[in-house]
Amino acid sequence: MARILTGIQSTGTPHLGNILGAILPAIEMSKDAKNDSFLFIADLHSLTQIKSPQTLKENTYSVAASWLAFGLDPEKTVFYRQSDVPECSELAWYLNCFFPYQRLKLAHSFKDKSSRLEDVNAGLFVYPMLMAADILLYDANLVPVGKDQLQHLEMTRDVASRINHKFKNLFVVPEAIIREENMLIPGTDGEKMSKSKNNTIDVFQDEKTLKKIINKNIITDNIPLEAPKNPDDSNLFKLFSVVAEKDQAHQMAKNLRAGGYGWGHAKKELIELINAKFHSPREKFLHYMNNKNELDYILEIGAHKAKSVATKTLERVRNTIGY
Amino acid sequence: MARILTGIQSTGTPHLGNILGAILPAIEMSKDAKNDSFLFIADLHSLTQIKSPQTLKENTYSVAASWLAFGLDPEKTVFYRQSDVPECSELAWYLNCFFPYQRLKLAHSFKDKSSRLEDVNAGLFVYPMLMAADILLYDANLVPVGKDQLQHLEMTRDVASRINHKFKNLFVVPEAIIREENMLIPGTDGEKMSKSKNNTIDVFQDEKTLKKIINKNIITDNIPLEAPKNPDDSNLFKLFSVVAEKDQAHQMAKNLRAGGYGWGHAKKELIELINAKFHSPREKFLHYMNNKNELDYILEIGAHKAKSVATKTLERVRNTIGY
Repeated sequence: MARILTGIQSTGTPHLGNILGAILPAIEMSKDAKNDSFLFIADLHSLTQIKSPQTLKENTYSVAASWLAFGLDPEKTVFYRQSDVPECSELAWYLNCFFPYQRLKLAHSFKDKSSRLEDVNAGLFVYPMLMAADILLYDANLVPVGKDQLQHLEMTRDVASRINHKFKNLFVVPEAIIREENMLIPGTDGEKMSKSKNNTIDVFQDEKTLKKIINKNIITDNIPLEAPKNPDDSNLFKLFSVVAEKDQAHQMAKNLRAGGYGWGHAKKELIELINAKFHSPREKFLHYMNNKNELDYILEIGAHKAKSVATKTLERVRNTIGY
Repeated sequence: MARILTGIQSTGTPHLGNILGAILPAIEMSKDAKNDSFLFIADLHSLTQIKSPQTLKENTYSVAASWLAFGLDPEKTVFYRQSDVPECSELAWYLNCFFPYQRLKLAHSFKDKSSRLEDVNAGLFVYPMLMAADILLYDANLVPVGKDQLQHLEMTRDVASRINHKFKNLFVVPEAIIREENMLIPGTDGEKMSKSKNNTIDVFQDEKTLKKIINKNIITDNIPLEAPKNPDDSNLFKLFSVVAEKDQAHQMAKNLRAGGYGWGHAKKELIELINAKFHSPREKFLHYMNNKNELDYILEIGAHKAKSVATKTLERVRNTIGY
């Protein structure tokens, strides 16, 4: 049985792109009985960016509520808040002492900010060792990562190997599972959907707001209602087809090509589709957000399970390195 | 009542210079009933340099045994191992997220090594934030530091002030007590006594070895026995006078100036003086080193007291910043 560990950034309520591109595939993978699955909300990492206590807390809740709303089973997956297992910061200190400063300087997360170093805090700089600690603390075998996180995972493997070279087999050296981004979710403007691009669709908001966003933010051309339209040129159609079943998308493409079917019709169908498809997750999400004590309870149980693994690893590490 | 916190490096058995220059004055200060005194062995810091588990442990024991041998009272001083309170690494993470990378680059401990950066590990780089965490975790008011550590204490004050600016009065901003190094303890070669200079005198070793070291390593000139000698030019005399009472030093100076009193006599007197003065601490030191379970017991009680303060501070910090 392979232990698979996934960290989730908690920078805000997940949008349609996060849900289709990351949450649903990860939940699918967590159902595989061959895997022993750990999933954590990286709220210690968030502190490198977010300094508002309210935002920090609210983001953690909305991320937890989203994953649960889409069917994550906390009985089968160890689901916890990073900050509930501060053992990772202790392990990060040990790892820091074995990892070259010069290598840490090569991390993309740091290099990307090298033109405005005055904005970089020390947490952001040493973050790859906190990430390494998060992984090594649980003896994880497999870590699903996007291409942008692959280098950080290489650093995890690097520091684990360096220490294993001195203290044989102290750590499990994890393997990456590279998350193929073959399902690119377009935003309302046709670019990749991303919070920083302000082109997201929030499926948890109420139907009225969703309708307003889709009608206002998805730009279409002004080909008249009657004229045939090319679905392949249409961002609205692309968005519809990533949410819809194949036959639904096929039907819309046919309607567009036939003419007499306008963008207004297509938008209406997209809105109806999202409302139908996300009705139940939205209800669940709202339930959790209105009953945060339930989220706290679920995450506490997860933290308890995670801690029982973490403290054992940490004891092994401390005994080996001399504490 | 002021809380005074002192960190002790644990890079080896304290030598005569450490004892006269740091241990005895600190123990004196800890007896002041006005102070609430915390003293810890910085064994997490040691990991930036020492990667041998045996050395790491042994150093901690020999440091603990030395302080106790010279009269540190663990009933009156909270005396603990840094690694027994891993809460400091958790706090260090939070501090890292509020402290600029660029400022950390200015730390002497890092800059001193800038010519051989390939030897610098990330732990050494972020160490000033671990030190800050060690201090802020206990709401320390006063921190005795040597001049070389003053800048690190400034960084502690800096990060505490930055966070207090956002979260009012979260931390006590500590004041430095600058340890005047007016009592410079010369090594066997006349340079400042220092492990790195290989010129130390270990007062805990057996009388035979001590005799050998002093006879062999303290170089004297070859003025004949009968001739008068100038004590002010003599390192042997300087060493004698930092250990001796005033009248003893005065008498030796007189003997040297009078002539008919050779360096051999002076060495014999120094050996006898050290043996007499450090007889009882040496016995106690050896007792503890042969009964390490006693050291463990004492340090565990200290850790328990330290933790009860640390966990309260950490709870306050977590509540404030959003965890």
